[in-house]
Amino acid sequence: MWVVRLTRKRNNTVSHDSFQEHSVTELTDALASREPTPGGGVASATAAAVAVALGEMVTRLTANKKGYENAQEALREYLPKLEAIRARLLELADEDGKAFIPLSKAYKLPRKTEEEKAYRNSVLEEALRRACEPPEYMMETICEAIDIVDDLTRIGSTMLMSDVGAAATLLSSALRAACLNVFINARSMKDTDYATGLVSRTQSMLEDGCNKADAAYTRVERGIRWRKN
Amino acid sequence: MWVVRLTRKRNNTVSHDSFQEHSVTELTDALASREPTPGGGVASATAAAVAVALGEMVTRLTANKKGYENAQEALREYLPKLEAIRARLLELADEDGKAFIPLSKAYKLPRKTEEEKAYRNSVLEEALRRACEPPEYMMETICEAIDIVDDLTRIGSTMLMSDVGAAATLLSSALRAACLNVFINARSMKDTDYATGLVSRTQSMLEDGCNKADAAYTRVERGIRWRKN
Repeated sequence: MWVVRLTRKRNNTVSHDSFQEHSVTELTDALASREPTPGGGVASATAAAVAVALGEMVTRLTANKKGYENAQEALREYLPKLEAIRARLLELADEDGKAFIPLSKAYKLPRKTEEEKAYRNSVLEEALRRACEPPEYMMETICEAIDIVDDLTRIGSTMLMSDVGAAATLLSSALRAACLNVFINARSMKDTDYATGLVSRTQSMLEDGCNKADAAYTRVERGIRWRKN
Repeated sequence: MWVVRLTRKRNNTVSHDSFQEHSVTELTDALASREPTPGGGVASATAAAVAVALGEMVTRLTANKKGYENAQEALREYLPKLEAIRARLLELADEDGKAFIPLSKAYKLPRKTEEEKAYRNSVLEEALRRACEPPEYMMETICEAIDIVDDLTRIGSTMLMSDVGAAATLLSSALRAACLNVFINARSMKDTDYATGLVSRTQSMLEDGCNKADAAYTRVERGIRWRKN
């Protein structure tokens, strides 16, 4: 696991429980390493957290701004929501790494005898369900962020539209990245009813969230490309 | 500027020159703050660096893997390229923040007299050009990464396709996010020939890069969604 690896690098003088306390260099080094975690889940959560932070900046800089009187009530509601969403995403990044451990162990269980196979199947099925939870929650959280960022393309300061557009497109790709982790584990589940329900929920979030975020990005790009003189 | 802000938070005991040495929490706090930088440029570079790191992991884990003999020559070529691309992206994030300072100063120059206006215009024009350089270089660098990640969807370990797909979609959105910073500054330039050339180059990278990255993501999603049993 990458936490151990990073701790070793520091001669055990510093111990970290959460990836968010690592530097960007350390995080990307850990992603780039041969260790299977952190992987796509942490990458998705990090990109989404960065996007949500841009949304917070836009909300803060549009607050109390002249000409944006009608936006103030919504902005007051959005700021604490975005702060909570960012914190949740960074938590889910850690949970994603943790959920991989039992899955990795389950895949390595012996499967020579019928008894071994049956035991491995039941442990694996449970581990697959647990491994799908962080990315599914990530997707729910990213969709909440997309709803707010979508509105910021309409009510946010026009001076900051490139930041809102960047947030929208990064959230869209974070949603796509997270869904791959659900799909790849769902297809190995033996309980097809459970897997089908999970994939159906995930796919619905993927479609709605990406459609809204991509439209928000396009709205911003069109606005920015309009040349006044 | 955010570097100053972060230094202050630490009671001036630690001074940082580069955002990549900050923790993910500090970086997202800085993005979320009322300070105009870091903004979309740093967010784009961070998301792209995270994606490139995933590409490095896939390259490392496919190296010397049984059944992937035909991929080895390409993988040996890709790994140092991806490492250099990630380092370059993190450098460009810093340059993006620095390029904003003269632009911000130029916008604040007085413009009451004709002399003031002329001086402001010439300083602003130069600052706009400089501010477009980091995002344009970012886009070039992201396109190099997309070429490699696109190939990884074909030659990388099938066990790691969700990571390759995550990398592809994150790179696509990082490219879109970076282009907004070029467009928004290009449209304020007085020299329309220069601006048109810049936008034309940028748009070409945006189209080619996003088309390739989005197709790579879709290829992965289709492959992952195919259910064997």
